[in-house]
Amino acid sequence: MVRWEPGARERLQKAALELYAARGFEQTTAADIAESVGLSERTFFRHFADKREVIFNGQALFEQAFVDGISSASPGSPALDVVAAALEAAGSFFPDERRGYSRLRQSIIVANPSLHERELLKMTALSTRIAAGLREHGIPEPQATLAAQSGATVFHVAFGQWIAEGETRSLPEIEREILGELRSVTQESA
Amino acid sequence: MVRWEPGARERLQKAALELYAARGFEQTTAADIAESVGLSERTFFRHFADKREVIFNGQALFEQAFVDGISSASPGSPALDVVAAALEAAGSFFPDERRGYSRLRQSIIVANPSLHERELLKMTALSTRIAAGLREHGIPEPQATLAAQSGATVFHVAFGQWIAEGETRSLPEIEREILGELRSVTQESA
Repeated sequence: MVRWEPGARERLQKAALELYAARGFEQTTAADIAESVGLSERTFFRHFADKREVIFNGQALFEQAFVDGISSASPGSPALDVVAAALEAAGSFFPDERRGYSRLRQSIIVANPSLHERELLKMTALSTRIAAGLREHGIPEPQATLAAQSGATVFHVAFGQWIAEGETRSLPEIEREILGELRSVTQESA
Repeated sequence: MVRWEPGARERLQKAALELYAARGFEQTTAADIAESVGLSERTFFRHFADKREVIFNGQALFEQAFVDGISSASPGSPALDVVAAALEAAGSFFPDERRGYSRLRQSIIVANPSLHERELLKMTALSTRIAAGLREHGIPEPQATLAAQSGATVFHVAFGQWIAEGETRSLPEIEREILGELRSVTQESA
């Protein structure tokens, strides 16, 4: 019998993160997660391929937000302005209501070396995807790769500040500040 | 009997890369490598912890070249000028005689997903190491991370051009050009 449980996916995801944070990722099984919200292990595997996917399932949507931001920029804009548009779009993907979730997720990732490696590789994949988007938007190499990597770095640094304890600014606001810092860093010169 | 074989390490390394390129990394054993140069498997493991280490054993020296370059920059220099000094030092780590070796090594890495992941993680580690070096040199955050990541990106793009078929410019020469491109990309703006 395959029954659809309304809201099951969200309940499983929330329960998974709480258990990973409390017990550790390695020590938590799919059965533990399902059981904690009164569902079966089989239901868990109808929603997620494995334990790790609960943590990384938003990646495709997240990359798409960047790509949509690139498409929204006027053709012919300077590369870093296109990246700024991509950062705005990606920043809106993380409204303030998501900050607590993102903070919990990050604490789980940094506590587990294999999840941390996975996260770093996802950042690399993001940069590759942004570079492809910039080339499609008419920006040649090596400018596309340089601007894409800069955008991924700005996002990474801004995101780290956004989830820091006590931070109240929005992610797009922090991204704009860090992008400004990047411009200063690369403009000062002897 | 433990006997020191003069030049064994270099012979093993050269033979390993040739076999990885010819047969594939997964299909080559430590015994195959040792045998191809008339040495024992035991000798192989006196020089390398495993098959993968033959490919990645230069990482510590390579990172040190960047760090030495940072130390050579005048204190108080703008962050990107310190990075430029680090790139010069790292570029000299790859003289033209090494281009053929580097090209062969890269072809093996891109052909194997797990080696490719390892290489990407090493690039991330490099960026973290450069950021630490910049902070020690008096550059605060977030400038240190932004400049470090920019330096790692410039190195990565320049290295890709340096090992391209038919390329004749030196690595430091290409690095200077790409660093200039990065400055242009981050300076143009609407």
